[in-house]
Amino acid sequence: MSIQYILELLGTFFFAMSGALAMSERDQEQDWFGAAFTGFVTAIGGGSLRDMLLGSYPLVWIGNIQFLYTILLGIICTGLFYKWVAKLRRTLQLFDTLGIALFTIVGTEKALSLGVRPEIAAIMGMFTAVMGGVIRDMLTNEVPVLFRKEIYSSACLLGAALYLIMYGLDVERNTSFLLAVAFIIVLRLLAVKYNLTLPKFRR
Amino acid sequence: MSIQYILELLGTFFFAMSGALAMSERDQEQDWFGAAFTGFVTAIGGGSLRDMLLGSYPLVWIGNIQFLYTILLGIICTGLFYKWVAKLRRTLQLFDTLGIALFTIVGTEKALSLGVRPEIAAIMGMFTAVMGGVIRDMLTNEVPVLFRKEIYSSACLLGAALYLIMYGLDVERNTSFLLAVAFIIVLRLLAVKYNLTLPKFRR
Amino acid sequence: MSIQYILELLGTFFFAMSGALAMSERDQEQDWFGAAFTGFVTAIGGGSLRDMLLGSYPLVWIGNIQFLYTILLGIICTGLFYKWVAKLRRTLQLFDTLGIALFTIVGTEKALSLGVRPEIAAIMGMFTAVMGGVIRDMLTNEVPVLFRKEIYSSACLLGAALYLIMYGLDVERNTSFLLAVAFIIVLRLLAVKYNLTLPKFRR
Repeated sequence: MSIQYILELLGTFFFAMSGALAMSERDQEQDWFGAAFTGFVTAIGGGSLRDMLLGSYPLVWIGNIQFLYTILLGIICTGLFYKWVAKLRRTLQLFDTLGIALFTIVGTEKALSLGVRPEIAAIMGMFTAVMGGVIRDMLTNEVPVLFRKEIYSSACLLGAALYLIMYGLDVERNTSFLLAVAFIIVLRLLAVKYNLTLPKFRR
Repeated sequence: MSIQYILELLGTFFFAMSGALAMSERDQEQDWFGAAFTGFVTAIGGGSLRDMLLGSYPLVWIGNIQFLYTILLGIICTGLFYKWVAKLRRTLQLFDTLGIALFTIVGTEKALSLGVRPEIAAIMGMFTAVMGGVIRDMLTNEVPVLFRKEIYSSACLLGAALYLIMYGLDVERNTSFLLAVAFIIVLRLLAVKYNLTLPKFRR
Repeated sequence: MSIQYILELLGTFFFAMSGALAMSERDQEQDWFGAAFTGFVTAIGGGSLRDMLLGSYPLVWIGNIQFLYTILLGIICTGLFYKWVAKLRRTLQLFDTLGIALFTIVGTEKALSLGVRPEIAAIMGMFTAVMGGVIRDMLTNEVPVLFRKEIYSSACLLGAALYLIMYGLDVERNTSFLLAVAFIIVLRLLAVKYNLTLPKFRR
């Protein structure tokens, strides 16, 4: 197993945790099935939407069963150690940040490999990272994560753009990958710390 | 026409009814178009999502026009006999139960026939049964049906698992089909009668 | 570039504007990214859903980058001239009407060209026109546009039916196209002016 594959499984694990947790925080009566369903949709939503938009079959989690078991493990761990996990909220936000940074560039690369233009690949990268959370929020009648005040999805889009610029400049692939992932992480952490926001649309 | 095909059309008919009815119960001003749209989406949503996730084209209702006319018939009957149908709410819940039980196993079989692993087939079976209702609830800003207190989607998942176990043990197909459908129906009826719930996720 | 292609780009432009505007009207704190995302989804949602339901790849905006830049232009114009655009609300409603009329028939033709039956083509035409707005409303937790009181989606469906009748009667294509588009526009304008509604479903 390559390092990247291990990271993808880890990212899936943390997305499943965040989905299972988010639902239960809102509805204390949430049962195991509801939490598991939400965790599952959060983990597979972004990649599935990307592949369905691009017509790339089979979807990743359908072709490789390890993702499903990783998701189940994430949900079970969250449920068994609920109080402990809920206390780690801050740490989990960090994992969410690692997850979206990683999946943005993974998704951008996948789209590129299917032959779409760079502009489309950047959108697909961002979708991979954030649309699982958007679908989760639509399911639970929340205002979607991407309308949050601090910079979130836009960090993904900028990171994807950075990757594509390096790709265009023929920068070595692993270097580009790591730099772009790091860029998203740093930008997102700065945004949360200093409460950075984009300009308002309405003036 | 095989018995199973007739049952599938019947299930589609009842799903369309339940969709048209659900919308109108919430919004008394609902017009015919809104009710029809909701009935239509409820009836085709689950199977369409399954086929789009699996990349199996054409979608069932696009390839076979009889489903569309069955849906229209369900909507028209609901509208013409609204008061009568609304009184039959309890009976309709029974039909909903028959519908989800049937479509769970139909969906599981279809996914299996497309070559996916049994774990994925079980998820696809459950999606076939319940995602029409989930989409209906997202459209109408309701908390989705699968977060309901009593056992609902989980009964579908368990029924699909039972079918797959019998499939693995080479049980004759019609026997497996009927047993799994009956299992879901009985489990769901017991859940409603005795208010059975799954354990809470949060402790 | 054909006249029809220019009209399609124009329709996309106005859909992007209406999406960017709708979000910001509801949430004054909306940032540029949120408005752009909503505008983007509104513009591509209907056509993307149609093509994903029909299994027709690549999606229009993925295969032709001009749509993406048209959307960006629509969003940027909306943001730069926000007050001016917001005042033009009434005029914009007119553009929305032009947009749905045009895309209904464009979508109907595309579905027909992929070999589906006319009944399915009419549904696909309506989906092309209105589902971008439905997805926008689901994202922002609004009751979807198609449950609005005045005739809206039903005008699209009737227009598609009219086109298909003329298609069946071998009426010359451009004539059919223009008549059906005009029919939807007039029906929608009359509906708004005279507050025309469909019969209630519940009696």
